[in-house]
Amino acid sequence: MQLKGGIFIGIHKFFTSLNDLERIIRAPGRFKFEEHNVAAHSWKVAQYAMFFATIEEMQGAQINWKSLYEKTINHDFAEVFIGDIKTPVKHSSPKLKEMLAVVEEKMMENFILEEIPAEFQAVFFDRMKEGKDATIEGRLLEFADKLDQFYEAFAELKRGNTDIEFIYMYQKALSKLLDLPLPNSVHYFRDEILRDALAEEARIDLKALTEDILKSK
Amino acid sequence: MQLKGGIFIGIHKFFTSLNDLERIIRAPGRFKFEEHNVAAHSWKVAQYAMFFATIEEMQGAQINWKSLYEKTINHDFAEVFIGDIKTPVKHSSPKLKEMLAVVEEKMMENFILEEIPAEFQAVFFDRMKEGKDATIEGRLLEFADKLDQFYEAFAELKRGNTDIEFIYMYQKALSKLLDLPLPNSVHYFRDEILRDALAEEARIDLKALTEDILKSK
Amino acid sequence: MQLKGGIFIGIHKFFTSLNDLERIIRAPGRFKFEEHNVAAHSWKVAQYAMFFATIEEMQGAQINWKSLYEKTINHDFAEVFIGDIKTPVKHSSPKLKEMLAVVEEKMMENFILEEIPAEFQAVFFDRMKEGKDATIEGRLLEFADKLDQFYEAFAELKRGNTDIEFIYMYQKALSKLLDLPLPNSVHYFRDEILRDALAEEARIDLKALTEDILKSK
Amino acid sequence: MQLKGGIFIGIHKFFTSLNDLERIIRAPGRFKFEEHNVAAHSWKVAQYAMFFATIEEMQGAQINWKSLYEKTINHDFAEVFIGDIKTPVKHSSPKLKEMLAVVEEKMMENFILEEIPAEFQAVFFDRMKEGKDATIEGRLLEFADKLDQFYEAFAELKRGNTDIEFIYMYQKALSKLLDLPLPNSVHYFRDEILRDALAEEARIDLKALTEDILKSK
Amino acid sequence: MQLKGGIFIGIHKFFTSLNDLERIIRAPGRFKFEEHNVAAHSWKVAQYAMFFATIEEMQGAQINWKSLYEKTINHDFAEVFIGDIKTPVKHSSPKLKEMLAVVEEKMMENFILEEIPAEFQAVFFDRMKEGKDATIEGRLLEFADKLDQFYEAFAELKRGNTDIEFIYMYQKALSKLLDLPLPNSVHYFRDEILRDALAEEARIDLKALTEDILKSK
Amino acid sequence: MQLKGGIFIGIHKFFTSLNDLERIIRAPGRFKFEEHNVAAHSWKVAQYAMFFATIEEMQGAQINWKSLYEKTINHDFAEVFIGDIKTPVKHSSPKLKEMLAVVEEKMMENFILEEIPAEFQAVFFDRMKEGKDATIEGRLLEFADKLDQFYEAFAELKRGNTDIEFIYMYQKALSKLLDLPLPNSVHYFRDEILRDALAEEARIDLKALTEDILKSK
Repeated sequence: MQLKGGIFIGIHKFFTSLNDLERIIRAPGRFKFEEHNVAAHSWKVAQYAMFFATIEEMQGAQINWKSLYEKTINHDFAEVFIGDIKTPVKHSSPKLKEMLAVVEEKMMENFILEEIPAEFQAVFFDRMKEGKDATIEGRLLEFADKLDQFYEAFAELKRGNTDIEFIYMYQKALSKLLDLPLPNSVHYFRDEILRDALAEEARIDLKALTEDILKSK
Repeated sequence: MQLKGGIFIGIHKFFTSLNDLERIIRAPGRFKFEEHNVAAHSWKVAQYAMFFATIEEMQGAQINWKSLYEKTINHDFAEVFIGDIKTPVKHSSPKLKEMLAVVEEKMMENFILEEIPAEFQAVFFDRMKEGKDATIEGRLLEFADKLDQFYEAFAELKRGNTDIEFIYMYQKALSKLLDLPLPNSVHYFRDEILRDALAEEARIDLKALTEDILKSK
Repeated sequence: MQLKGGIFIGIHKFFTSLNDLERIIRAPGRFKFEEHNVAAHSWKVAQYAMFFATIEEMQGAQINWKSLYEKTINHDFAEVFIGDIKTPVKHSSPKLKEMLAVVEEKMMENFILEEIPAEFQAVFFDRMKEGKDATIEGRLLEFADKLDQFYEAFAELKRGNTDIEFIYMYQKALSKLLDLPLPNSVHYFRDEILRDALAEEARIDLKALTEDILKSK
Repeated sequence: MQLKGGIFIGIHKFFTSLNDLERIIRAPGRFKFEEHNVAAHSWKVAQYAMFFATIEEMQGAQINWKSLYEKTINHDFAEVFIGDIKTPVKHSSPKLKEMLAVVEEKMMENFILEEIPAEFQAVFFDRMKEGKDATIEGRLLEFADKLDQFYEAFAELKRGNTDIEFIYMYQKALSKLLDLPLPNSVHYFRDEILRDALAEEARIDLKALTEDILKSK
Repeated sequence: MQLKGGIFIGIHKFFTSLNDLERIIRAPGRFKFEEHNVAAHSWKVAQYAMFFATIEEMQGAQINWKSLYEKTINHDFAEVFIGDIKTPVKHSSPKLKEMLAVVEEKMMENFILEEIPAEFQAVFFDRMKEGKDATIEGRLLEFADKLDQFYEAFAELKRGNTDIEFIYMYQKALSKLLDLPLPNSVHYFRDEILRDALAEEARIDLKALTEDILKSK
Repeated sequence: MQLKGGIFIGIHKFFTSLNDLERIIRAPGRFKFEEHNVAAHSWKVAQYAMFFATIEEMQGAQINWKSLYEKTINHDFAEVFIGDIKTPVKHSSPKLKEMLAVVEEKMMENFILEEIPAEFQAVFFDRMKEGKDATIEGRLLEFADKLDQFYEAFAELKRGNTDIEFIYMYQKALSKLLDLPLPNSVHYFRDEILRDALAEEARIDLKALTEDILKSK
């Protein structure tokens, strides 16, 4: 704990910032039937990654599990500074996207240097750096992050949301998933997960359902 | 209406984007007892400005009412692109603030050029430009915008919110209000509004309140 | 500020009553996928009016912009006293509707006489009077108010809400819009806005959407 | 079931209107930490009445239990037509209050005549009539209804809400409760319920609580 | 009121536990368009029971109205201890279901012995015991409870919810309703309520609705 | 994917059950200013554990990071079956607590055997077993889980919640934290985290804050 301009800083402040991420809602400004916060999203990403890393390991890959879990649970921490910038903004122009990435990085740097006690700064710099690199753990993070976007968009569209942004989100997430250089995971997703998801009823016919019950009496 | 990459654009899309602003919550990521959206905020700013412009006019100022109302109801439209970036981010460094301002401006420009039919583009460029200039209408917009921040922070603090960001928001908004070059408005705010606000009970003593009622029986 | 029965009254109280309108939900008691408050509604009405007044002006009409904006941002202030009385009630009988209008008017009168400082009462009486008169600004208010009802009902029906009240609301709002004596605005709404709104997808076919993506790989 | 202007009416419609009351929020427009709907309120009123009628019966009173329960669960059904009109409105003038009572009564009459099948109309007229009469069941309804207002206001004030309306609500509800001609119930409320309620901690001293735990280690 | 381990207990605590039931949401963990709490559910069950008991009485049955209303308003009070255990859990195995019933019963027993003043314990034991027995009041409670499940599932399915649990809930509730030994109630439900419910529009065709209005101009 | 009684099962179903945990609210039935879901809680527990394991490792402990992260992100998965049973229930009697633990375990066993494809069952049995064992990772899970309870209760009490359950939750969580056999973590928590937490302002004095600003002008 250090005193800075009258404000106590330190790990307590880092812990309370985790709580802030429960209040950052994904895809702000869009109509949605169900809201998701960044904290819960990060947990689901860790869960998906755990499963697909298991598949890759069963097929012979070497997984650095410590790195995988740290990449997944930390990958959106920077949103505590800048919120969940709406996707159309992030991708509207490569230059704009780059500018925002620089801003986010600078905020994180400031945060670590000003709030985290010196003895932990090296560990924080290492854990909070961009996780989507070319390692198998980096690709699994990308895969799991896109899978959650797929599920969010899928659930909205299935329930009757017709917001064009969710159609785009669905198309982009699915397309990216299928293209990732993780053949075993892609294969399992395509042949099992996607098949099951699409096999769900798209809409219940209440009259038919009721008739069946009445006839059985 | 024009067809663009399969998506219909035009004034209908502009109108539905107004609805998006009802879903952009101010001060995202902070704990608050009451949430405010950008649409409702813009309306309150227009109301405050109407009142203080009346005061200024009574004291002899010349008000361009059309400009005043258009500045106030349009002043946060750009948040439809980038959300309510958290204030600490916006002000963390002058350079960062400037970068974000450029991003917002570019998004607005793209929006008008791509979504608004040609015959209305000039009107939109005029109405959507930054409103906080040196004119009396620009200063009244600044005053009204800060007054809403004052009220948001005041209500949170009065109800027992101890989040440090609301203390900062209260200090900055009040300090800025008192410094604005609108002597009549500042005077009325300081002598009437602020006095009444602080005269409200800070906390009810339930036991005393109950005793009074019991004694009166 | 004056002291009255122990309660401070004045402009501070008027300003806090604006906040009350953020808590008055439109169409209370009906199931809806998205809620709208009276403050945000008033802002959208001002925005719609700004656009259609621009169209009328382009076609040669003379617009009193100050009056137009004041009519729109103030038109539902009286709901602070009586809430958003459910539409079926308001229109169930002409006599009932009239009784409620009288009640609302009396409440507004009391409010201005008792809460607003004497020097501002004349201005408040002028701004808070019923705005839907025969002037072009009064007709534009009526048009913009109905347009927001149209959009609210449209969004509910499109998302799968089957509440009969929203069908009625849609029918009445659309029918009223098309009949208003504002030929240029009606024409633009019918040929552009309505066409674009109905061109939106009514429901996404997830299987087809997915097949398209799979085939493109 | 009868067909009327294309709309099916009957008991199904009555049953779905019960669901509407789950969406009518009490004290609309006021800031509150916890919202209550009219359906849940009606249930609590029935529960309170059950308890106090037990006390009265133990002291020798004759209770018509069927009447008591029907009065309590039906007493706010008319709010389905007109919502929970804000209390200040209801009581602002005796004439206004009377006008609104007439409106509500007329709406109920129309509803029964138009929606309820003929064979049940007499039963509905009987059950839906104003329940707060001079019988012991009518007085117990009044007592239970006021007790719920007391609890709603008490909980808000205890949690730090300083809205003046809740102070008034607390004062009026408590004052009315103590004055009701139900001596046994008033006595039990005053000596047991009120004493326990006021004995609750008004605010936790976190530092002292923590010190106690640290010392015990 | 008695003092116990520093905590005041008694009827005040019982009354505040009624408020807890407003916060217990039915079918926790499932996606739903509309949430229902246990307090509001209990009120609707009392309302349905009132109606069907009227039908049975009209057909010659003898109704103990006091018992009927007490069974309905008290039937889910035990959820204050254990929440609304998810239905699949409750019914996953007969043994599991039995274990949970024992737990709930024990909690209720403890509550009455420890919180309720001695003079009211007998009344509470009588009123809080399992109400779904073979009496006509017990069968009406079962009927009304299942009817509310039917309505909850019906509303979700009609609005486009495709969660498999709501299909099961609909099937089970409807099937159970039709099998209950209350021929007059079952008959009325099947021939009137169910027919009206299924006659409602399943989905609005916005284009056709709009064309009709345009043509009428 | 296998077909079972008409329902597709498999990893897709497991993934959608993660979404269910976003809808299980912690401490159901209690009044709280801020709600937390089980998914976000699990993520915070993983974050706390990451930090305290770092401290222990710096002091020479050997950490199995894979085990630590899997224990933390999976530790509350069983709540998908039985919800967040209210803590007073869980701990009301050792026998009751044991019965509920058996129920939860059986549900998990059924889930894995019936929903998870055979090739993954062994991995799931291993990962989903009770994590709070005597290993350092088991103790860190217990520490991190209690720390989140501490923070939840702390935030409620600080904001003015006086619900007795949160006082108990605070006392038990803090007491348990201080007693855990993890001397380095306990030491850091007590000397840094707890000190900083208690140094936060308990309540803002609005009048003093305002006077300071006014004086500075």
